[in-house]
Amino acid sequence: MVSAVHAWSERLAQNGAQFTGSIIRDLLRLTERPEVISLAGGLPAPECFPAEELTMAAEGILAREPLAALQYGLTEGYRPLRALVIERMKARLAIDVAQEQVLITSGSQQGLDLLGRLFLTSGTLVAVEDPTYLGALQAWHPCAPRYVTVPVDEDGLNVDALERMLADGVRPQFLYIMSCFQNPTGITLSHERRRALVEVVSKYGLPIVEDDAYGELYYGEERPLPVASMDMEMHGELRHVVYLSSFSKVLAPGLRVGWMAAPEELISKLTQVKQGVDLHTNSLSQATVYEACRDGLLDRHVPFIRSFYRTRRDVMLTALEQHMPEDVRWVRPEGGMFVWITLPPHVDSTQLFHTAIKHDVAFVPGATFYANGGGQNTMRLNFSLPTPAQIEEGITRLGQAVRDVI
Amino acid sequence: MVSAVHAWSERLAQNGAQFTGSIIRDLLRLTERPEVISLAGGLPAPECFPAEELTMAAEGILAREPLAALQYGLTEGYRPLRALVIERMKARLAIDVAQEQVLITSGSQQGLDLLGRLFLTSGTLVAVEDPTYLGALQAWHPCAPRYVTVPVDEDGLNVDALERMLADGVRPQFLYIMSCFQNPTGITLSHERRRALVEVVSKYGLPIVEDDAYGELYYGEERPLPVASMDMEMHGELRHVVYLSSFSKVLAPGLRVGWMAAPEELISKLTQVKQGVDLHTNSLSQATVYEACRDGLLDRHVPFIRSFYRTRRDVMLTALEQHMPEDVRWVRPEGGMFVWITLPPHVDSTQLFHTAIKHDVAFVPGATFYANGGGQNTMRLNFSLPTPAQIEEGITRLGQAVRDVI
Repeated sequence: MVSAVHAWSERLAQNGAQFTGSIIRDLLRLTERPEVISLAGGLPAPECFPAEELTMAAEGILAREPLAALQYGLTEGYRPLRALVIERMKARLAIDVAQEQVLITSGSQQGLDLLGRLFLTSGTLVAVEDPTYLGALQAWHPCAPRYVTVPVDEDGLNVDALERMLADGVRPQFLYIMSCFQNPTGITLSHERRRALVEVVSKYGLPIVEDDAYGELYYGEERPLPVASMDMEMHGELRHVVYLSSFSKVLAPGLRVGWMAAPEELISKLTQVKQGVDLHTNSLSQATVYEACRDGLLDRHVPFIRSFYRTRRDVMLTALEQHMPEDVRWVRPEGGMFVWITLPPHVDSTQLFHTAIKHDVAFVPGATFYANGGGQNTMRLNFSLPTPAQIEEGITRLGQAVRDVI
Repeated sequence: MVSAVHAWSERLAQNGAQFTGSIIRDLLRLTERPEVISLAGGLPAPECFPAEELTMAAEGILAREPLAALQYGLTEGYRPLRALVIERMKARLAIDVAQEQVLITSGSQQGLDLLGRLFLTSGTLVAVEDPTYLGALQAWHPCAPRYVTVPVDEDGLNVDALERMLADGVRPQFLYIMSCFQNPTGITLSHERRRALVEVVSKYGLPIVEDDAYGELYYGEERPLPVASMDMEMHGELRHVVYLSSFSKVLAPGLRVGWMAAPEELISKLTQVKQGVDLHTNSLSQATVYEACRDGLLDRHVPFIRSFYRTRRDVMLTALEQHMPEDVRWVRPEGGMFVWITLPPHVDSTQLFHTAIKHDVAFVPGATFYANGGGQNTMRLNFSLPTPAQIEEGITRLGQAVRDVI
């Protein structure tokens, strides 16, 4: 008789077999002791969830229109929510699309997954920022693409480097960027580079996947307009960009409601893929989000979130100035949830991690976010979840750990 | 300048490019006229949603433990819900598994998708019932597997045919079955065949994916025990079977909460895939389901659902006897939502569909459910959503349509 565990495991598709417990998961297990201050996470602060409004919204929709929350729904998404998303994109971002150009997704993470399914197969090439969002690499892992990386500086993606790459004949399936307050670096693509980027991709016909999950979390005066807006401005339509966003950072991530906007033909294909994947995004969350937002909750609530996180960012930046040795550098993010640290070249942040754990503070070693390796001397710090007191104490401890290893 | 629609579409992965508007979707568009009685759907009746209890549960969990409903959660699923699922499987189905063997999914549909990701690549072989669940074929379409079909009669899968196939050296990645009240046929695998099936797969080391989405909707005295229970009984553990189920048919499908039980090693791999796919199933639905069920709602509510649908099934079976010509045959389902009709061999049900639409009644042509073609003279009728009066009138009209084409 054949052993069945063996029967299952010997059948794993080549890409499936490659899954192994990730290093980051193992590292984070070390942070579970209650005395450890974790700057390693990426969670929103619970204080920023409009729990009361969401409760009222869930009650309201279940009382008024229970089928909208409980019955099977359209794969494309709950119609009133799509309309709301379209209205907001138009009013706030100058992205003007039709209903057939929007797909509601189970978080923006699912948008990445669906795109992978449609465009990536084993060995196909994807261009990503260096470093990039880990969740994108995880979403595409089962497709086993190859990556070409484009360097990033404090103004974001190096568009000249991208153009040289394209001029050299490199032809990725698409370029994936997080244009605002990138996870992990907190960096924002400058206005000038956004324009240059659209020009370059227009010239070479390179599609862009723009992930704007953090876009609403700007701590300056104005929200930068997405690259998708510029695509729209230059071409009169969404032509080169697939735009992804989410309610996770402005309402609550546990709802798992995001969306994507793209050319209609592409949304139609993505909708067909999504139908096989999960039929549709859960109706209760979609209807609750719509019900909560239709009278303008976001305009009232998101300024509070921005001010809440701005304070924490400032606390972290001040603490870094006080406690970090001179040859440590960091990005001053204009939004989002993360500060990105660059240590002197000889310092390995994975080694530092173990020292830091002894000091009861945790972070994510930056090498995790590099698709093709590198970044051993970098690390990502989160300021959205820890309290100001924890941030101050955490950075104090981290400064000691850095001094220990330097 | 390169046209971007072209840029996107020329980049579709080979499998992605194959997506085209499905025939069934086009057909169903014809059923949207209000005067058409649709027996084509697969939706639960709204009267069966415990809307009040779900509203109270959502309110309760948001008030008592808002983070459980709003914050990011574990990819594996909400811990109390996993515990509840494990307890119910043990008490009702004699499936006794540990927490590490259960993964909460975004509907059982997602279970099918995750399994496809892990086990199927282009050209790999999957064994399915003939006919089989359309949603499974849709889930696996992007992986582009090949199918080998196993015939089904009124006692379910022909296990002898399966064994001959395996003895001939055919080696599918797994066998997919819906063991109870199958969609589309309503057929249930007999007790004797369940036992024989576990023996055959044990002998050949063939994994089974058992989809039990309709298992609770039995209209006889007792719920048949899943094949997974027999696997457990014969091997002392879940060895050959991955068991999928869902809250869609017993609470509400819009919540998109299902689960899978499998050997621990496999759940661990599936969890890693799911993390890249959607991070986790939405917390609000998971916590609401748990909150609604923890005091025994299912035991109070599901008997009502069974009696509600039993009536509709009986109305349909009686109407078929009254209105169908003699050479039309059908399955008398012991549960589920569907009646499966076999017309005389020369009748094409897709042609019949157009005649039926003229009579203002719709169904799904059966050929849709055959992975490798066939079944042109079959059709699927749904009795869960139409009212008894609609069922009677619908079958009357359908009888006339059948007479027209015979």
